[in-house]
Amino acid sequence: MKKPVNPTLEDVARVANASTATISRAINTPDKVAPETRLRILNAIRELGYTPHSGGRALASNRSNTVGAIIPTMANAMFASGLQSFQEELAIAGVTLLVASTGYDGKHEFSQIQSLITHGADGLLLIGAARLPETREFLALRQIPYVVSWCYKPDPKILFAGFDNHKAAYGMTMEVLRQGHRKIAMIAGISEGNDRASNRIKGVKQAIRDFGSPAKLLKVMQTPYSQTKGGDAFANLMHKPTVPTAIICGNDVLAAGAIVRARQLGIAIPRDVSITGFDDIDIATTVYPTLTTVRVPQRRMGRSAARLLLELLTTDNKPASIEFETEIIFRESLAPPPS
Amino acid sequence: MKKPVNPTLEDVARVANASTATISRAINTPDKVAPETRLRILNAIRELGYTPHSGGRALASNRSNTVGAIIPTMANAMFASGLQSFQEELAIAGVTLLVASTGYDGKHEFSQIQSLITHGADGLLLIGAARLPETREFLALRQIPYVVSWCYKPDPKILFAGFDNHKAAYGMTMEVLRQGHRKIAMIAGISEGNDRASNRIKGVKQAIRDFGSPAKLLKVMQTPYSQTKGGDAFANLMHKPTVPTAIICGNDVLAAGAIVRARQLGIAIPRDVSITGFDDIDIATTVYPTLTTVRVPQRRMGRSAARLLLELLTTDNKPASIEFETEIIFRESLAPPPS
Repeated sequence: MKKPVNPTLEDVARVANASTATISRAINTPDKVAPETRLRILNAIRELGYTPHSGGRALASNRSNTVGAIIPTMANAMFASGLQSFQEELAIAGVTLLVASTGYDGKHEFSQIQSLITHGADGLLLIGAARLPETREFLALRQIPYVVSWCYKPDPKILFAGFDNHKAAYGMTMEVLRQGHRKIAMIAGISEGNDRASNRIKGVKQAIRDFGSPAKLLKVMQTPYSQTKGGDAFANLMHKPTVPTAIICGNDVLAAGAIVRARQLGIAIPRDVSITGFDDIDIATTVYPTLTTVRVPQRRMGRSAARLLLELLTTDNKPASIEFETEIIFRESLAPPPS
Repeated sequence: MKKPVNPTLEDVARVANASTATISRAINTPDKVAPETRLRILNAIRELGYTPHSGGRALASNRSNTVGAIIPTMANAMFASGLQSFQEELAIAGVTLLVASTGYDGKHEFSQIQSLITHGADGLLLIGAARLPETREFLALRQIPYVVSWCYKPDPKILFAGFDNHKAAYGMTMEVLRQGHRKIAMIAGISEGNDRASNRIKGVKQAIRDFGSPAKLLKVMQTPYSQTKGGDAFANLMHKPTVPTAIICGNDVLAAGAIVRARQLGIAIPRDVSITGFDDIDIATTVYPTLTTVRVPQRRMGRSAARLLLELLTTDNKPASIEFETEIIFRESLAPPPS
């Protein structure tokens, strides 16, 4: 069959062998359509390149000028400056930002996406690439314009404005090894349903494997991102028979918690044990000793995500993903191990 | 005229001496109605106790199960834990939270309120009592259910779940005086359009006035809430001919910035100068020396705000405002002045 230039709902119906009413239902109320039918319709939509609103420019006239961001948590400043610059860039274009949070729960993410779309958001900013199948399907069926940030992978189906968590964690671990550490531990975030956390763990493991003997990863502890939890994990690691000389933390919140707890326990950082972070948010310099960490270019990333999303919403362009580089910021908490 | 039990749009039209179409316009698109007409209609609505949706219980059936929170900033963790518990409490009732931020700008607050209401929010959480006249009028005309938090005053027209900023700042200042300080300075937030910031300044001034000679408020510096700005203000104060022995900060972010800068300048806290904060967020214990500060019961406050709002949305009750007490948390950054 010849592929139509401007595929219509009728074209989708023909290819999917379903009525136009069923196609509409699959797009607007997917719960009311059997999964196998939805899959057939989704494949037809993809094959034909059908968009429910016949192209970005047409969509532009229907816009509510509101965009949604769905972030894992508002409970600390991890996403704050990226979100702030995302909002500032949208404001220049006269677009309002509404934010919802998921508590790192995939089901919540899905319901928040549905809620934002129901309330008229034109497009979305999502964090990370791990997503429930039903969420992916909803995004695809509804042809919702969205940008994924805080991660990057070479996947042409998804539009990223992010960075490679695996590579960044790998680089920090190699630096820790280069400074002479051989007994290393990690305090990581919960990896389930969080690709940033799991890729940081994989990056650390890979670097230690690549470096080879006698470098050793003593332990990876997974814990929620809070200073108290980071402190608890630190205390736990320092009570084991074999004590690490360096602890790589999954983010700055965990690392700050470890440093504060070290002071309370009378353990000197970095003399007794080195600590590294990830993110380079404000607390990296609030804490004492100050934190050696991976700098994520949050402001540039947020701005780019906004520009990509606006391009999706207002033009017929297919913009390309942007990968940002991270860098290691050297401060006081990392030093060679005690000799 | 006898006041009708269930006032209708027609009753409002009669009392306001306007057409029902004009009443509708004043409620839904106030910009299209002359200010004096709007005022007349607003007075009629208040006089009659008219609600556009004829009472809370009726409203309940039209609910979109979404509530909006409009906070000054997402750029640091100042509102994070209160917002988190607000959201958790709403989630129990199956209500979704959407958040927008204003950048401490009254005009932005108004446009974000309009945007959330347009996108179907059933009710709102607002921060602070300072509000543009047009915003107040919009809230009143549209009869939008809302709760105000992070402040409290005995005003029966507004539903508060908050605390008295003046009283809290007064209490902290009296404690600083009690410990022997007589040369005091303040690093405050920007007071314009921010009643929390201005009431904290007033509380400090009042306490020093009430204490009397020889206690002296050397200087109040107003600066945006950022650690860098707090550090800059601290450096500025410590370079003046008369140096304070205690600096009261408008919040923990400013205080943490001051403590970090003191370390960089070789000034010992609290030996050379004492520092106090306000909020008791995480950085109060991340920073070293740890911060003596005013604890705001954010979690209880957020939970109560959610309960009050849900009560407004689902019942015909008229719940009463709740005032929370703050307390001083003693840590390392406050000590008697050098003798």
